[in-house]
Amino acid sequence: MSHTRTPLLDRVAGPQDLKPLTDRELSQLADELRQEVISSVSETGGHLGSSLGVVELSVAIHAVFNAPADKLIWDVGHQCYPHKILTGRRHRMSTLRQKDGLSGFTKRAESEYDPFGAAHSSTSISAALGFTVGRDMGMPTGDAIAVIGDGSISAGMAYEALNNAGAEGRRLFVILNDNEMSIAPPVGAMSEYLSRISQVGPMPILDAMAKDMERFLPEPMRLGAQRAREMVTGIEGQGTFFEELGFDYIGPIDGHDMGQLLSVLRAARTRATGPVLIHCCTVKGKGYAHAEGSSDKYHGVAKFDVASGVQAKSKANAPSYTTVFGEALTQEAARDPRVVAVTAAMPSGTGVNIMADRFPARVFDVGIAEQHGVTFAAGMAAAGLKPFCAIYSTFLQRGYDQVVHDVALQKLPVRFAIDRAGLVGADGATHAGAFDIGYMGALPGMVVMAAADEAELAHMVVTAAEYDEGPIAFRYPRGSGTGVEMPDRGEVIEIGKGRILREGTDVALLCFGTHLAECEMAAAMLEAEGISVTLADARFAKPLDMDLIASLAANHAALITVEQGAMGGFGAFVLQAMAAKGLLDGSLKLRTMCLPDRFIDQASPAEMYQDAGLTAMDIMSEVSRTVKHDTTLVGFPGRA
Amino acid sequence: MSHTRTPLLDRVAGPQDLKPLTDRELSQLADELRQEVISSVSETGGHLGSSLGVVELSVAIHAVFNAPADKLIWDVGHQCYPHKILTGRRHRMSTLRQKDGLSGFTKRAESEYDPFGAAHSSTSISAALGFTVGRDMGMPTGDAIAVIGDGSISAGMAYEALNNAGAEGRRLFVILNDNEMSIAPPVGAMSEYLSRISQVGPMPILDAMAKDMERFLPEPMRLGAQRAREMVTGIEGQGTFFEELGFDYIGPIDGHDMGQLLSVLRAARTRATGPVLIHCCTVKGKGYAHAEGSSDKYHGVAKFDVASGVQAKSKANAPSYTTVFGEALTQEAARDPRVVAVTAAMPSGTGVNIMADRFPARVFDVGIAEQHGVTFAAGMAAAGLKPFCAIYSTFLQRGYDQVVHDVALQKLPVRFAIDRAGLVGADGATHAGAFDIGYMGALPGMVVMAAADEAELAHMVVTAAEYDEGPIAFRYPRGSGTGVEMPDRGEVIEIGKGRILREGTDVALLCFGTHLAECEMAAAMLEAEGISVTLADARFAKPLDMDLIASLAANHAALITVEQGAMGGFGAFVLQAMAAKGLLDGSLKLRTMCLPDRFIDQASPAEMYQDAGLTAMDIMSEVSRTVKHDTTLVGFPGRA
Repeated sequence: MSHTRTPLLDRVAGPQDLKPLTDRELSQLADELRQEVISSVSETGGHLGSSLGVVELSVAIHAVFNAPADKLIWDVGHQCYPHKILTGRRHRMSTLRQKDGLSGFTKRAESEYDPFGAAHSSTSISAALGFTVGRDMGMPTGDAIAVIGDGSISAGMAYEALNNAGAEGRRLFVILNDNEMSIAPPVGAMSEYLSRISQVGPMPILDAMAKDMERFLPEPMRLGAQRAREMVTGIEGQGTFFEELGFDYIGPIDGHDMGQLLSVLRAARTRATGPVLIHCCTVKGKGYAHAEGSSDKYHGVAKFDVASGVQAKSKANAPSYTTVFGEALTQEAARDPRVVAVTAAMPSGTGVNIMADRFPARVFDVGIAEQHGVTFAAGMAAAGLKPFCAIYSTFLQRGYDQVVHDVALQKLPVRFAIDRAGLVGADGATHAGAFDIGYMGALPGMVVMAAADEAELAHMVVTAAEYDEGPIAFRYPRGSGTGVEMPDRGEVIEIGKGRILREGTDVALLCFGTHLAECEMAAAMLEAEGISVTLADARFAKPLDMDLIASLAANHAALITVEQGAMGGFGAFVLQAMAAKGLLDGSLKLRTMCLPDRFIDQASPAEMYQDAGLTAMDIMSEVSRTVKHDTTLVGFPGRA
Repeated sequence: MSHTRTPLLDRVAGPQDLKPLTDRELSQLADELRQEVISSVSETGGHLGSSLGVVELSVAIHAVFNAPADKLIWDVGHQCYPHKILTGRRHRMSTLRQKDGLSGFTKRAESEYDPFGAAHSSTSISAALGFTVGRDMGMPTGDAIAVIGDGSISAGMAYEALNNAGAEGRRLFVILNDNEMSIAPPVGAMSEYLSRISQVGPMPILDAMAKDMERFLPEPMRLGAQRAREMVTGIEGQGTFFEELGFDYIGPIDGHDMGQLLSVLRAARTRATGPVLIHCCTVKGKGYAHAEGSSDKYHGVAKFDVASGVQAKSKANAPSYTTVFGEALTQEAARDPRVVAVTAAMPSGTGVNIMADRFPARVFDVGIAEQHGVTFAAGMAAAGLKPFCAIYSTFLQRGYDQVVHDVALQKLPVRFAIDRAGLVGADGATHAGAFDIGYMGALPGMVVMAAADEAELAHMVVTAAEYDEGPIAFRYPRGSGTGVEMPDRGEVIEIGKGRILREGTDVALLCFGTHLAECEMAAAMLEAEGISVTLADARFAKPLDMDLIASLAANHAALITVEQGAMGGFGAFVLQAMAAKGLLDGSLKLRTMCLPDRFIDQASPAEMYQDAGLTAMDIMSEVSRTVKHDTTLVGFPGRA
């Protein structure tokens, strides 16, 4: 795999092999590790830029601390490739983010060196504080070290954790990995503050401190962390934001200078009695010119050619749902000056960057702050604007209470554009958009739509823009559309009305969302087997099209719902509504096909849906089984 | 209603009537308003302490700003009684928190002076920023003013909002109502910081500034907010936490000194160009000796005698579920040193204060920080501890992503003690614990229990303490138990097993949770009518007791589920599981009784369940209707 020689790295089977190395050797190891990361990710794709930024830091932490007894927690976890290589997973890096391979994030099930998995941001300090309490209560656990980026630390959750950790006063290490760029350029006042600190930070003093520390390492700390702070901030009694919260602050230091890193980490480890924040400045994409020179620092890349930096292009025949959303939104923004958009640090991920190009003053990137983002949108709706709140399904969980309390309860017309619904592929279980149908659909007054294809998505954007009576949500998956013809502008869909795509006599398939394509395949196969299928696109999980459902129930022997979501979602709502109307009283056979009741590990989306039992073939089998089901077995589930 | 003369207040029909008053008259008005609040709440009960703390502030804001054009947003909203009295709702204060009466919080549907309702904390700055953007984009809205307490501002969501508002730089007013006490004594480093500022704050300088401002009010501001800040902080270039976030900071000022309040608010209103934070120190319970002298400052009170301060005692025959939980938890903590508890600023509300009395070092109050609290618990579980995370159902929505991503995905054994499940009475729709069955039950590997009575709750605490294979949740309602005999210690319940309480032949009632009592009443009434009823307590919404369900399905003509939760919950799970096993294929009649698909306004819990159609009589009627349902109507819902 490696194209360069890695003599030191070849001798590292685990962190213990770093202990005998000299500081100079650790520097060399970092260089080798960097080449290994570049080489490895060039063949798999992945989060390159973040990992390159923490190569030296990964080596230094593992050299100074004692994982797995010490608990090293990488926030988000997408920067963990050097860590994975150092902790016995080098030989599996070629399987990264693939089926049955290494996760692209930290994962407890994968290694004892991943004591707390991640993938969503800003959880590391909370988890580290938990380990710290465990240690103080006698559990067999060492120090806890959280490594968190400047983007992640701006989230409310990280602030809550800093606040609580500062008050608890327990020995705890937080390393702020400040690369001045989260996925998007960081927004918010906190990021301005951090770059101001970095600019005015007394690096020469720090250099001196680092040297001093090295010289005095064997001696006990005389003035403790208090002194370290004063040496760094220069002025007695004048603190940083982090000190106000109760942390000893050390920094800023150069996160690519192995000497500084080792000195500061050794000193901190030897001397800390309470919570310490080490402010470490790094460069995203460090050491790979193509990444450093790129605007997104190769945050997430496809396979690429190491020499040229050229990434393999995916050959999409149809535009991505994200792009379709962004363009349709921009069109609505052009028609109605009240249309505004909110994103939580994902302008390009959600496609609102397309609108921002034309209407920059009407697109709000609130940072990693889903709670605030949702209520901010509610406030704009209350003021008479038409906010589109574009948040991935998995991240909208972060703003759930705000959806309930600030939006739904007040019937405010916030439009939720829920991207990455269903299974998402390489990002795996942590990013699955599995639960939104249920958690949104349970809310009174919420309209919940799912797009069956990209043209439907365009219709739903227009429908959401026009609908002003209350909150409305529409979900759509990651990836490319199905290649259907696109309208110039979407059409307004009647709220609560589905559509029939194929009329049959034996079985009805009622699909909610983009699994419509699989349903069509299944229907075609079933017809070939002599089973006549009606196929309907529900479009709405709420309000349900009860006329359509009653008609399907009345005219078929079986009704099967299909959705890209967890139990308690669309199928559950259909059953519950049918029960209320007595539509389950007869001999109609009902089945709900949804995600199974387990988390699905990363693979391609198609492989994940195969794992989930939701292929066209699975749908066909379920229909066959149901239609041929021996009704005499009813009531004896053991034999069913 | 009033026992004292209120000549000025009697002339106030709305905020416009404050405009002609002199500053001295406004002071007098505040005094009258305070007496009115005391007198009024003495007859209804309610959030007295918070409201008494903002009497002067309410008068001053309404005197200086122009609601409803200006948008005044009270964080949480429980301190809004003076505001309600000043905004045309004085005559309805006797209906406070009662059925068809005034809400105990701000509420959009109630008044144009409540532009953004609340009840959960820390939403006000986000909403205010939304209004501010609306104003800047030409919507017919004036200034936005958020009033937020020192407890609420420590939540991550408020930090996210301050961070974003600071970066946006729009004219916006945040009034920090710092009474140094949220419901519980405030925790966290932020609260220490605030009290430090208050202690060292240059009040004399501020006094001077206030006088200066008064004198120069007609003139344009010369040096702007920058100068105001410097005058307050004393030292040029040295900022407060809020200034670091981009706010102009004014304060601390005396929130009970009408002169200071009016001066500062007038000056800020005249001069502000960007976001301004006014730090206002108040005393919770101010002006009512019994409240000021009480440890909880009469935060939430029953009806009381004004002269003596003695509150009406509720006459409970059984212990509250909260107390039963707290005592059972303490018992488990005594047996197992690994048992720890987490609360988010609700130690007495959740009953963990009982454990804290005996084991103070093992109970963690993280402040209003549900996101951090859940992941902190996950970290403790990963370290080998046995955390009980005690959060009300409605507030657990704030930590939903953390439940999914940090707990369920990692199968960590965090115990969720979900108090205030179902409808909660006087706190109304905003506090309803309506959605937890669905949003927890959808998660793979989550065990979800509900206690049918207080003895069951004791069993479930023990079961949760013993169960260490993954996350487990148990829900229970607000209020007193049913008076059943209590075991010395609860017994471990078999996971996924329900119990049958009454055996019959015609209809099966399958209840999840404390509506078991209503089901028993219904069953007795039905038996009297000749309908033989089997009554089962499901105990588990996940995993379901499929043997029990199959047996109920096989041996009855109808199966009806009953739960204190929204659609998409227990009943939906039962239907979906039955469909998967073919148990819906026959002629069994199914119905799911749950909360209706609308928000239920405040009343007594019994009245709310009546409103919801979930009384014993409703259950009886549903059973009768179902059993007598003409099956020939199936498939024709229009006639059903």
